[in-house]
Amino acid sequence: MNVVIIGAVALGPKAACRIKRLDPEVKVTMIDRDSIVSYGGCGIPYYISGDVSEASQLQTTSFHMVRDQKFFKKAKDVEVLTQTEAIAINRENKTVSVRSMEDGTERELPYDKLILATGSSPRRINIPGSDFENVFTVANIHDATRIKELIAKGNAGTPVVIGGGAIGLEMVEAFADLWGLDTTLIEVQDQLLPGLISPKMSAMVKNHLAEKGVEKVYLQENVEEIGGEGRVEWVRTNKRTLKADLVVMAVGVMPNSRLAEKAGLEITHGGAIKVNKQFQTSDPDIYAGGDCIENIHLVTDAPVYFPSGSLANRHGRIIGTNVLGGAEEFAGVVGTFILKVFDMAVAATGICLQKAQSTGKDVFSTFVVQGDRAHFFPGMDLMYLEMVADRKNKAVLGVQGISENGDALSARINAIGAVLPSKPVIRDISNLELAYAPPFSAAMDIVNALANTAENILAGKNRIIDVAEFEDILGGPAEKDCIFLDVRGPANAKPYVDAYPGLWLNIPQDELRDRMDEVPKNKNLILICNSGVRSYEAQITLDQENIFSTKNLQGGVAAIKKYGVKIL
Amino acid sequence: MNVVIIGAVALGPKAACRIKRLDPEVKVTMIDRDSIVSYGGCGIPYYISGDVSEASQLQTTSFHMVRDQKFFKKAKDVEVLTQTEAIAINRENKTVSVRSMEDGTERELPYDKLILATGSSPRRINIPGSDFENVFTVANIHDATRIKELIAKGNAGTPVVIGGGAIGLEMVEAFADLWGLDTTLIEVQDQLLPGLISPKMSAMVKNHLAEKGVEKVYLQENVEEIGGEGRVEWVRTNKRTLKADLVVMAVGVMPNSRLAEKAGLEITHGGAIKVNKQFQTSDPDIYAGGDCIENIHLVTDAPVYFPSGSLANRHGRIIGTNVLGGAEEFAGVVGTFILKVFDMAVAATGICLQKAQSTGKDVFSTFVVQGDRAHFFPGMDLMYLEMVADRKNKAVLGVQGISENGDALSARINAIGAVLPSKPVIRDISNLELAYAPPFSAAMDIVNALANTAENILAGKNRIIDVAEFEDILGGPAEKDCIFLDVRGPANAKPYVDAYPGLWLNIPQDELRDRMDEVPKNKNLILICNSGVRSYEAQITLDQENIFSTKNLQGGVAAIKKYGVKIL
Repeated sequence: MNVVIIGAVALGPKAACRIKRLDPEVKVTMIDRDSIVSYGGCGIPYYISGDVSEASQLQTTSFHMVRDQKFFKKAKDVEVLTQTEAIAINRENKTVSVRSMEDGTERELPYDKLILATGSSPRRINIPGSDFENVFTVANIHDATRIKELIAKGNAGTPVVIGGGAIGLEMVEAFADLWGLDTTLIEVQDQLLPGLISPKMSAMVKNHLAEKGVEKVYLQENVEEIGGEGRVEWVRTNKRTLKADLVVMAVGVMPNSRLAEKAGLEITHGGAIKVNKQFQTSDPDIYAGGDCIENIHLVTDAPVYFPSGSLANRHGRIIGTNVLGGAEEFAGVVGTFILKVFDMAVAATGICLQKAQSTGKDVFSTFVVQGDRAHFFPGMDLMYLEMVADRKNKAVLGVQGISENGDALSARINAIGAVLPSKPVIRDISNLELAYAPPFSAAMDIVNALANTAENILAGKNRIIDVAEFEDILGGPAEKDCIFLDVRGPANAKPYVDAYPGLWLNIPQDELRDRMDEVPKNKNLILICNSGVRSYEAQITLDQENIFSTKNLQGGVAAIKKYGVKIL
Repeated sequence: MNVVIIGAVALGPKAACRIKRLDPEVKVTMIDRDSIVSYGGCGIPYYISGDVSEASQLQTTSFHMVRDQKFFKKAKDVEVLTQTEAIAINRENKTVSVRSMEDGTERELPYDKLILATGSSPRRINIPGSDFENVFTVANIHDATRIKELIAKGNAGTPVVIGGGAIGLEMVEAFADLWGLDTTLIEVQDQLLPGLISPKMSAMVKNHLAEKGVEKVYLQENVEEIGGEGRVEWVRTNKRTLKADLVVMAVGVMPNSRLAEKAGLEITHGGAIKVNKQFQTSDPDIYAGGDCIENIHLVTDAPVYFPSGSLANRHGRIIGTNVLGGAEEFAGVVGTFILKVFDMAVAATGICLQKAQSTGKDVFSTFVVQGDRAHFFPGMDLMYLEMVADRKNKAVLGVQGISENGDALSARINAIGAVLPSKPVIRDISNLELAYAPPFSAAMDIVNALANTAENILAGKNRIIDVAEFEDILGGPAEKDCIFLDVRGPANAKPYVDAYPGLWLNIPQDELRDRMDEVPKNKNLILICNSGVRSYEAQITLDQENIFSTKNLQGGVAAIKKYGVKIL
């Protein structure tokens, strides 16, 4: 039996090895246009940053063997043809026409089963100057090495990154952190990580970039031209012209489906290769998976394009099984991801508020700040989680979070992501069982607290305002009708009371019942504490006194600080 | 409406506050025998160790207010009667008879709804000398403070901890780490953490204790007498007499159900207060939760006693809701836990191999070693996971793990724990979606790899031996029939080949096909690599050559080292 695999990164090698382990007699041939195969593409930003010193490390196994042609031959008995392009699939004859990119020779590879592991290609913005040689995408190790060489030789000091998605942010960190380059980030939409996290949380990420010295983050700007004498010297947006000696376009990727389309295979509306749950294309002898297909989103039940090295590996194993007669099915994804941005991790599962709103559902979000471990345990740090849920049926649609400790954040996001396919309601997350010991979590974990808070909001008991709305009130037209009632202890509140006389008032929550006569009755009260917990208690106490014109600031002063509101 | 709550730690305060937030008009009275209430009991070992410097920190809120009587009155409008004992529940009159432990006065507290938050009491071994004043249990802050004072004053240098469960191990660390005391641990069973992890993984914990200087860990020893002149001077087991100036008994806890039993409430076979899914006892106006009840184990569907501060908090909130007319149900637990032991975290969810075997099912376990993040990412460390599954229906019954990074371990255990109530099969874990980025995980996460390996074992493709069996072979009667075939690179293998001439053979996996004639044909081959992955590949290659007398050492040399096999 002959299996041909087009594409030798992530999915291709995984499927190849799985096939050989299941049946060593099968002949597996894997072809790739590149000379370097089976590398960890997700590691490229860390190679550029210097966290990973050599490109070869991205191509080695965990036991330090380079996954090259010889490795696949010797260790896996898999034939790899590098610098080889698949130019046509001849479905009737069951062959793939391939061309050597070295000498141009063509040949036919017969297959019994064919696997399309063609992956994705980075989008490029088609503007004047986009073809300069120092305008890059983050696509392969060759580009990465050229970028790194430019920096190392001192030929790139003012990089401009276009695109505020995950890869754009990783590239900003790569340039600005260890290399200390004067880096600019441009995003056409009005927030970082659009479609992945809320604008509020995105602002917290932007604030962290600023803390790390990356002040030049320009949102809602369109890059119109890249210019210079022979090489990039400037980037012009609709709002400004920026000095630039290196440009990285990180504006998303597209599924590589041309070859499949030419062969008459079905393509989705999104331009991906259409497959069934067993990863068969419209030709049952041809399989596809990874970045060149779409998945079903198990929260929305709609197709979603979710390119991911991890997902490609999981697809690859199943394809390997099914090519040999298996019938394993892959249900879909919930979009769980994590991202390191300097000292912050951003992670999410399911869908964010804006995506949920776009489905037409009546949705709301809950924002909670709490320690990532017992508050008395050394090293405790605050974690910030947002949950998106359906008001009507209480379905949990997604959770997004930021934290200094990415592992601790994964511990929460992974757990929620694991139950999302079963379509949990809020109460299920209230009762989600997480590993507890003071060094690693709080007795009421932030995940449970998040759901409890969502339930209180839905019940109308916790009437909220979020930090973006708070920022709008501060110094805005609504300010004159508001009092900020700080229910923390006097020591915490004093600097704010001093800075905003008449506007910022302090009555500690535990004194509120005794000092009720001090509470202004004819104002909108914005209740504030460190995290939103005591202010919620205060709201209930005020309700009891028939003072209902109150809003509880979600996340309290912790959110104000993380958001970067210029307040003190 | 009057609600009386007996017990003011964890569940009691949580239920009290929930009730007051739902309906501030309800009168809530909480009584406790202790003078200190609402403390984080799970933090006691960290207070004794010095990680937490003051006992009051365990009693403060995250915003540094002490949760004492005054706090509950002022901040929560909850009456707390401390040093007050409930002596009887008069169900007909709906009152609780309470007695002041200060002045002996008795009174009746009327209730509409009563909540039993009586918790658990530590077991004591009834042996001569167990009543010495420096024989402690880890039950409350008073005992903890006395222990800490003894150490601080230099009056405890050779503590003996009885019980190798979670609290026993935490106490060993508390004594031996920061204080540097010469600490002994005695466990009556044949492993640490019995019933929670496998003997193999337990041996790895024991080995870590030894690495940290705690060499005196005695298993299968029965403490028979504690002796000394006026105070503890020695502890005698069935095997030895140990010098001791402080004894901690950490031999489990029992539900406090006496009061309920006296009141005629139903008690379970295990001695816990019987409740329904809404936490009502056999008297529908009386609720109970936390450490004084049992839960349904969602893997075994049998009752389980699972005392946990986190669980008590979740119970407490539901009880608060239900006391006011709600009908929330609590399905049960999967037993997810985590524990810090020096620089190692131990975590688990579901049931371990021995527990699973005791149910009579045909079960097996899979042991996998893999990096906790991308192998090329700085700071990567190995993680060790064991999965227990049913051979017949492939049901996943539990996963246990150890790791240096407890947060990263939680990220895996929490995710698996989250899906266990839905009774997943192995394939569900193969496809479990976890947050991926190189700084936090591998493209094929260890959780997915664990399930894939389990599937390969079940399919008979991966024929295994575990490190305990390997240790038995080494130097044992079976050794003469074996060859250890090391399929790593020569540099890794050389020290072992040199140390075991004739027994330890090296053929790198990628050279195996070419060097097949060097493979001994008349021996049992134990295939060894660093982690068990390449040796699995080697096994398949040998199968292809009809050499079937092979076993793959699970976890490879990493497991050998972690287990502490004296090999080099």
